[in-house]
Amino acid sequence: MANWVSVTRTAHFNAAHRLHVAEWTSEKNREFFGLCNNPNYHGHNYELHVTVSGPLDSVSGYLLDMKTLKDWIEEDVERAFDHRNLNLDTEEFRNLNPTAENMAVVIWEKLKKRLQPDMKLKIKLFETPRNFVEFDGTQS
Amino acid sequence: MANWVSVTRTAHFNAAHRLHVAEWTSEKNREFFGLCNNPNYHGHNYELHVTVSGPLDSVSGYLLDMKTLKDWIEEDVERAFDHRNLNLDTEEFRNLNPTAENMAVVIWEKLKKRLQPDMKLKIKLFETPRNFVEFDGTQS
Amino acid sequence: MANWVSVTRTAHFNAAHRLHVAEWTSEKNREFFGLCNNPNYHGHNYELHVTVSGPLDSVSGYLLDMKTLKDWIEEDVERAFDHRNLNLDTEEFRNLNPTAENMAVVIWEKLKKRLQPDMKLKIKLFETPRNFVEFDGTQS
Amino acid sequence: MANWVSVTRTAHFNAAHRLHVAEWTSEKNREFFGLCNNPNYHGHNYELHVTVSGPLDSVSGYLLDMKTLKDWIEEDVERAFDHRNLNLDTEEFRNLNPTAENMAVVIWEKLKKRLQPDMKLKIKLFETPRNFVEFDGTQS
Amino acid sequence: MANWVSVTRTAHFNAAHRLHVAEWTSEKNREFFGLCNNPNYHGHNYELHVTVSGPLDSVSGYLLDMKTLKDWIEEDVERAFDHRNLNLDTEEFRNLNPTAENMAVVIWEKLKKRLQPDMKLKIKLFETPRNFVEFDGTQS
Amino acid sequence: MANWVSVTRTAHFNAAHRLHVAEWTSEKNREFFGLCNNPNYHGHNYELHVTVSGPLDSVSGYLLDMKTLKDWIEEDVERAFDHRNLNLDTEEFRNLNPTAENMAVVIWEKLKKRLQPDMKLKIKLFETPRNFVEFDGTQS
Repeated sequence: MANWVSVTRTAHFNAAHRLHVAEWTSEKNREFFGLCNNPNYHGHNYELHVTVSGPLDSVSGYLLDMKTLKDWIEEDVERAFDHRNLNLDTEEFRNLNPTAENMAVVIWEKLKKRLQPDMKLKIKLFETPRNFVEFDGTQS
Repeated sequence: MANWVSVTRTAHFNAAHRLHVAEWTSEKNREFFGLCNNPNYHGHNYELHVTVSGPLDSVSGYLLDMKTLKDWIEEDVERAFDHRNLNLDTEEFRNLNPTAENMAVVIWEKLKKRLQPDMKLKIKLFETPRNFVEFDGTQS
Repeated sequence: MANWVSVTRTAHFNAAHRLHVAEWTSEKNREFFGLCNNPNYHGHNYELHVTVSGPLDSVSGYLLDMKTLKDWIEEDVERAFDHRNLNLDTEEFRNLNPTAENMAVVIWEKLKKRLQPDMKLKIKLFETPRNFVEFDGTQS
Repeated sequence: MANWVSVTRTAHFNAAHRLHVAEWTSEKNREFFGLCNNPNYHGHNYELHVTVSGPLDSVSGYLLDMKTLKDWIEEDVERAFDHRNLNLDTEEFRNLNPTAENMAVVIWEKLKKRLQPDMKLKIKLFETPRNFVEFDGTQS
Repeated sequence: MANWVSVTRTAHFNAAHRLHVAEWTSEKNREFFGLCNNPNYHGHNYELHVTVSGPLDSVSGYLLDMKTLKDWIEEDVERAFDHRNLNLDTEEFRNLNPTAENMAVVIWEKLKKRLQPDMKLKIKLFETPRNFVEFDGTQS
Repeated sequence: MANWVSVTRTAHFNAAHRLHVAEWTSEKNREFFGLCNNPNYHGHNYELHVTVSGPLDSVSGYLLDMKTLKDWIEEDVERAFDHRNLNLDTEEFRNLNPTAENMAVVIWEKLKKRLQPDMKLKIKLFETPRNFVEFDGTQS
């Protein structure tokens, strides 16, 4: 029996992107994504909240070392996406539309591999200060 | 099988209100609601977070179009409540005490009708920067 | 010779108000102030920043005691305006249109009397998170 | 049947602390906790979000009186921890490592006793603007 | 004699850009601008604060109508830059390096023309939540 | 003739401190500084805004390289004060009362030496989210 706690570390990166579905016509893309389909790209400051949940270690008083979590985020997310063009400069979004929703799923999949199996992970990604998405691995 | 994601859109409105239960005496209202019972009203900037959850569309990479969600919030919430006196100017709170809790329930009921049945909705309403309420349709 | 420093204390109050110029017709008021002229009032959470500047005391390392400044703001601003209808419940705005601009001037005049003559005062008042006004006593 | 709502009140306190496990050697403490093990202490502004969930009272439109919740937080948390050295000045952390995780558990245990049995409690504690922990009483 | 007040309206836009000086070699650009020189662009959410100062009108209690100011910002800034690639899609930055500093100067020059001659203008532009620039027309 | 611009970089550190004037009796210190005089120390997350002003370079579009500014802040401020006890662990405050006002002056004096003589410097230091001080080198 242990106390189940969550710890959250925030991070920040900025990138250019263009929302575009390759299987659709230019017209449908323009209509569906509006200004976000601009062929010359636009960009965002992405604010990321990474939440890990699991059993609190009663000796150290830690769930996991936040500095380690910070390093994982730097390696898996910041080095991969910061100051990049998501569509052109990254493997992850070469064939995947870089919506905030897809970005949250991709970041979840990368960081989940870092965690011990009894830990849970939740990603919250702000695309602007007024819009954010969340993903915690749930399937429907 | 689809990834279950949440998207949140924030909005803002300001309004005057007075907390008052018609069935109670003036004295009981004053005692229970304190300054919030001021018969001449006081007011707030309400900050609203509308969160919709559902299966991510694997083609578009969207759960739903955020611009559509923004339009629904403008029509159902901002046009109805912004720059209003909630007690005097709105149908919703003519006979319902405009506490933040009741406001969250009313906003949830209005926006829920807009969504497809397999989507979930959660309302978070800040009455001040230091107080907020949440409602997601759960009954007890 | 002393280091000239500024200290700022923030405070918060909420109130109802209506923008209205008594000398104008109802029509002109409606046209000029729009929704802000609603005869039933609307309201805001006002966020206040009070900045005092003056010579740093080299012994205490203080410009002035922030707890004293906090008390002055509570007495002169919060007790007078919090949970009030500015037009109906306050002397200050019975005959003065309670725009954020006028509110900043009124708060400046009240708090200036508290300070020693060699100190300067600046008021910053947020009417919403997206709009604020400033006044420091300058005349043109 | 009642609407199940959550209300959150935020609070603030600041304190000094040192992360240290008495059973470990100085060396292991230094290695594990890094700068946070500084024997002369360091400190934080702690931002606290206290969330209570339960059935909405259909008459008053309240879950519980937020002023009462505010008073409980002042008595149980602010008076106990504000402007204190957590390791030296508090009973709670004399023999318990004052990590943010342990602090959230301690605050949850104190405030839970205040609530009616059908209400749920969740604590969110920011140690810095970039790190926070959460605890809602779940055991694993 | 009138009270001299300032009013500030905030706005938001997002864009892609690349920092690059045409007169310099690719090598010097890479060295000087680092990741910001990425030929495929990166991007930001720009947060803009537009501050206008001038004599308070003693009848209306306004310096100028904030809705008019909001419209000017929409026309001159948001329509021109929002969801654009600053280097490719705008006249202003075709031959001018789109640093935040240059952007603040360009926005100041556009909005200054809107104001009456006795009013002053100050631009504050956040490129990220941790970096911002200011320009008020001062020449050295 | 050049455009005179300001650039601001924000930073963060946390520290323990105790307000205490060695020349005063314990009693006077307790009375004057209240809880801030706690002999066991308390602490804060300090949020720092460093603003440099000067002539905009018309070729690069920069005032100065923000990465260089960030490095100076890390060396002069973060390495010196982060996770420290200001009274015990730092040369700067061994004999100087570590009020926020004195801290702003000390940080200004350290960073001013880094800048070219025609540049101006302003320090803004938040001790809590509700209190901050400013210093720009002005003497009275």
